[in-house]
Amino acid sequence: MKLTHQNSTLIVDNQTVTFNHRLLLQQTDESPIVFLGHGEETVTMYRGNFDIDDQVDTRLALTIINAYQVADKLALEFGFQDVHYLTLELTIDDQGRLVMIPQQVAAHWNRIWLRLAATADEKVYGAGEQMSHFNLRGRHFPLWTSEPGIGRNKHTLTTFKADADHAGGDYYTTNYPEPTFVSTHKYYCHTTSYAYADFDFRHPDFHELQHWQVPTSWTFETAETYVGLIEQLTSLLGRQAPLPDWTNQGLVAGLQGGTPRIETLKRRFQDHHVALAGIWAQDWEGIRMTSFGKRLFWNWQFDDNLYPELPAQVKQWRQEGLRFLGYINPYVAVDSPMFAQTNPDYFAKNKRGEVYEVDFGEFNCGVVDFTNPYAFKWFKSVIKTNLIDAGFAGWMADFGEYLPTDVVLADGSDPMVMHNQWPMLWAKCNYDAIHEAGKEAEIVTFMRAGATGSQRYNPLLWAGDQSVNWSLDDGIASTIPAALSAGMTGNGLTHSDIGGYTSMYGNLRTKELFMRWGEMAAFTPFMRSHEGNRPAENFQVYDSGEALDHLAKFTHVFQRLTPYRQAVIKEVVAHGTPAQRPLFMHYEDDPESYSIQYEYLFGRDLLVAPVYQAEKLKWSVYLPDDDWVNLWTDESFRGGHHEVDAPLGQIPVFYRKQSSYTDLFKTLKQA
Amino acid sequence: MKLTHQNSTLIVDNQTVTFNHRLLLQQTDESPIVFLGHGEETVTMYRGNFDIDDQVDTRLALTIINAYQVADKLALEFGFQDVHYLTLELTIDDQGRLVMIPQQVAAHWNRIWLRLAATADEKVYGAGEQMSHFNLRGRHFPLWTSEPGIGRNKHTLTTFKADADHAGGDYYTTNYPEPTFVSTHKYYCHTTSYAYADFDFRHPDFHELQHWQVPTSWTFETAETYVGLIEQLTSLLGRQAPLPDWTNQGLVAGLQGGTPRIETLKRRFQDHHVALAGIWAQDWEGIRMTSFGKRLFWNWQFDDNLYPELPAQVKQWRQEGLRFLGYINPYVAVDSPMFAQTNPDYFAKNKRGEVYEVDFGEFNCGVVDFTNPYAFKWFKSVIKTNLIDAGFAGWMADFGEYLPTDVVLADGSDPMVMHNQWPMLWAKCNYDAIHEAGKEAEIVTFMRAGATGSQRYNPLLWAGDQSVNWSLDDGIASTIPAALSAGMTGNGLTHSDIGGYTSMYGNLRTKELFMRWGEMAAFTPFMRSHEGNRPAENFQVYDSGEALDHLAKFTHVFQRLTPYRQAVIKEVVAHGTPAQRPLFMHYEDDPESYSIQYEYLFGRDLLVAPVYQAEKLKWSVYLPDDDWVNLWTDESFRGGHHEVDAPLGQIPVFYRKQSSYTDLFKTLKQA
Repeated sequence: MKLTHQNSTLIVDNQTVTFNHRLLLQQTDESPIVFLGHGEETVTMYRGNFDIDDQVDTRLALTIINAYQVADKLALEFGFQDVHYLTLELTIDDQGRLVMIPQQVAAHWNRIWLRLAATADEKVYGAGEQMSHFNLRGRHFPLWTSEPGIGRNKHTLTTFKADADHAGGDYYTTNYPEPTFVSTHKYYCHTTSYAYADFDFRHPDFHELQHWQVPTSWTFETAETYVGLIEQLTSLLGRQAPLPDWTNQGLVAGLQGGTPRIETLKRRFQDHHVALAGIWAQDWEGIRMTSFGKRLFWNWQFDDNLYPELPAQVKQWRQEGLRFLGYINPYVAVDSPMFAQTNPDYFAKNKRGEVYEVDFGEFNCGVVDFTNPYAFKWFKSVIKTNLIDAGFAGWMADFGEYLPTDVVLADGSDPMVMHNQWPMLWAKCNYDAIHEAGKEAEIVTFMRAGATGSQRYNPLLWAGDQSVNWSLDDGIASTIPAALSAGMTGNGLTHSDIGGYTSMYGNLRTKELFMRWGEMAAFTPFMRSHEGNRPAENFQVYDSGEALDHLAKFTHVFQRLTPYRQAVIKEVVAHGTPAQRPLFMHYEDDPESYSIQYEYLFGRDLLVAPVYQAEKLKWSVYLPDDDWVNLWTDESFRGGHHEVDAPLGQIPVFYRKQSSYTDLFKTLKQA
Repeated sequence: MKLTHQNSTLIVDNQTVTFNHRLLLQQTDESPIVFLGHGEETVTMYRGNFDIDDQVDTRLALTIINAYQVADKLALEFGFQDVHYLTLELTIDDQGRLVMIPQQVAAHWNRIWLRLAATADEKVYGAGEQMSHFNLRGRHFPLWTSEPGIGRNKHTLTTFKADADHAGGDYYTTNYPEPTFVSTHKYYCHTTSYAYADFDFRHPDFHELQHWQVPTSWTFETAETYVGLIEQLTSLLGRQAPLPDWTNQGLVAGLQGGTPRIETLKRRFQDHHVALAGIWAQDWEGIRMTSFGKRLFWNWQFDDNLYPELPAQVKQWRQEGLRFLGYINPYVAVDSPMFAQTNPDYFAKNKRGEVYEVDFGEFNCGVVDFTNPYAFKWFKSVIKTNLIDAGFAGWMADFGEYLPTDVVLADGSDPMVMHNQWPMLWAKCNYDAIHEAGKEAEIVTFMRAGATGSQRYNPLLWAGDQSVNWSLDDGIASTIPAALSAGMTGNGLTHSDIGGYTSMYGNLRTKELFMRWGEMAAFTPFMRSHEGNRPAENFQVYDSGEALDHLAKFTHVFQRLTPYRQAVIKEVVAHGTPAQRPLFMHYEDDPESYSIQYEYLFGRDLLVAPVYQAEKLKWSVYLPDDDWVNLWTDESFRGGHHEVDAPLGQIPVFYRKQSSYTDLFKTLKQA
């Protein structure tokens, strides 16, 4: 049977489904296409870290028992022992996408496994923001938004120690999982479902997509190039808005401690000619002390002690050319004035009908129930009144991963399904507030949590809470595969905390780490520093003239790059092409480029190979086949492996000789 | 339907199976009785440590579709969607046992799960030798013979470090797993199958027994007492033989390094009046050095350099009243003379037909293929000629856990099934050699690995390679639940290396640890010391006058206990009642006694509460309701919690005032 529509061709026979020459489904004697099952999960959450266990009582390997065509639909009927259990309806939509819709499934079945045909040499990318492995092949990836964990590698002592506090994480734990991936067979696959999923890319002959809900559909689209594929994917999922122009001014400095302290530190930055775009004060709403470190007081009104008359002060900074950015998350501390003043129905409930209190580590919070339209509207108004009207030019929209699975939600929906959707709802709450205020060109928010829809509602990702060290899975290096995989999932704008965040189990930030992170950030869409969770014990840039001078240099590089970066961001906005791109995106004939996850192309013309190890004077880089020029030495290179000088202040960056921005690039080393 | 035979009554209706008033099977809407499935396992072995993964493609929850009676058999037909998949045939055998036989199952199905009805307060014990948890409830236990691992607790630094070498283990890893358990509902359940199994005791309403093969049968028997239950279980599985009389003489000293060194050390023991029963020299066949420590040269002939004219020397020691014990295991080093001289067909093969070489850490070995009757006979003759004929009074019959799952065996059997059976075959090889030589009253062998049948073929267990430390899961304490669970599986005679064995990752044996271990060993069936894997770095008793004096004292306690111990061992031999018994075995009305796993009754009349922590002068003991007398102080106690003095040399031991051995017990403190 054959279906053609909008230049797409679908061919179905009794054993295979082929779409635009890609073999997508194949039933063999050893491997069926679909399994249907029933399971009962056990989920325990400890401060955003989850233990998830599944007991599958039944799993049926279904085989094709019938195939037929009705008008513009092909249908595959699947059965077990000749009893019909599921129909897969295949259509081509008006964009030429293949949409597979599972139908006629009895309500009892709550587990489904779809096997996609694979080849041994195939690679896959995406699945949201993946911080340990860019190419997902050879591993399975549970998709469940959570704390990423500290260390994120069971073989490290940091994770071992953190696991004693249920907080160690693993290679797949992420704030932003998404059931979407891109295959080197040049197709994308997106599942329309927020339920728990586990994508298993370990088998040479198939990918097995597990969902804890029969999904609405699986959507596939093919393209001739990866750029084209991401354009199509973001046409489906949505695209990010451009960043406000003021972000080009330089660094958003993460400072805190109240107006006087910020004033003092600001002058230190200025004395060293650090180009400042704004000040980001996450503690605008006050602080509390916990064993983890200084934590914020989750009561979304400005703290009159730390920031007296904050709106007036914001105006004052604005007159100096500095934006003010704040912080908010979708939880309200139960010991806060805001909680006391709020309708309890605006928070998710426990089974007894009381406000569900989530443990955030020495304090408890209510969870704003976004399924209650009144609660959504109320929290939007909090954002409008207390942040937007106070003149904030942006904020960290933190968290979103902590929806417990035993809450009772206002609209009666299943928290096992809503859990992964929550970050999208939280992004939308911010988005709606800003758009209703007409401030989209002025304000930038940044989130670490994500879900399908983040592409549309969240203008900027940040890579979450890295450890302040050189570890591959949780340190500076991890932000690179994070950016690349987020980009392959349609999120082209991301950045990370300069200097990292988490100082625990003996990890302390060094000056060198901060400086390496800063020079990398100049080649990302947005520059923002963070003092970390334990500011006093860790290195701070404002305490070192050398580091301030180095940071100043790279804020000037960032400023000078503005025309190029704006063009790059324009591509993100118009086509979804990520700002930070894997090498294979533009060099797809280069087999080596597919396994590089610690270098990236920043736009079409810059190749960035950040130094992510300590005490390096030289650095090995891989360049795909092209004419490249070292940004700092003007030396020319062809493709291949090269060792280059890479002292502090000289992050390995190369530009294409053919670029139309070569004149600009040449000036960067004078910044 | 009802069946009665040999005082047993079986009642079956459409939802339940009740045997002698025990509800064994119960089908509810939520929980079926049987699941049938098909899976494909991945098994990797690294030096006896296994990674086992299962991909279950199909799992069917079966429900009862028919029940009928034919003569003396009841049958339950199970189906999925009304299609028949399996029949469970239920009969009562001539011993009054319930035998459940799964029948009419298509060959395709290689996974089966049987759910037994449970109650929340029920406890279960056994499953072979379990070293971390005596009561198995609340956890699942994969049953697969392997190295137990170093540390055996994922929360300890030792295990973390060992896991980097794939050698950390977990709470369930054991040399001796067995699909047999005893429930506090006063029944035992034994599965006739050696295939991989996983017994899941986590659910309040059922136990789920998973087998990777449709087993021959499940057997159940009930009794009024635990003593009666174990008598019945060992009537099914077999019982151990009595230990040779000479074992009552005192310590079997683990010494090595060749005849002259042993002579020197022997004199040191004798100078301090240590009562010696024998010398155990594991290196009689020579040594090799590896990074793990001194390892033995697996070439089962005496080493003429270390032990010139060994048989004559053995005779000489015998004239002095000392037995000589050796060492053997079912592998032969590929670089040994014995390997070169042996028919390659006596070893398991790889898929290319070559001898399969197993990596034992810096050296490789062939695996004697016990499924080849000629190989079995050959290895038996090696034992007869090189050990028995040389006058050995016993040996450690080491290993048995390393059968790789990808070997090709002579009789064509599946290594996935033979793997767990291997220790029984290895035990039988030793047993047959000794019995054919008519030396059963003279020779004792001891094994760490086990399987169904070990009860009959292995006269004495030893608890394997503990770490030389105080850790609960892998140190001195772990030998107590090991003995108790082995006992509940029908192995009533066991002991452990005095001082422990494994010194790795910074663990070093202290004098105190050795002394605590020694005083405990006096209240077990057999006393044997070990120098450990790294003798030079670790404490050795012969280097300390204080420790030798302490050891001497406890060898004299052991000697004096002989009449009592012989009576205890007689009960093991006649009824299977283990020498080391859980408190509840004789105090079943005492609810607290069911959760005590670090004390034991040694026979009916002694309660032993070993000190398993460092630097203790006092120790908390629990005594069940009875009249007890402190062995060292003559102080009387009733049941309950008591703190008693427990300096070195005063292991907390109590005897029953009603015992007929009180006169003997009173003399022990003068030993």
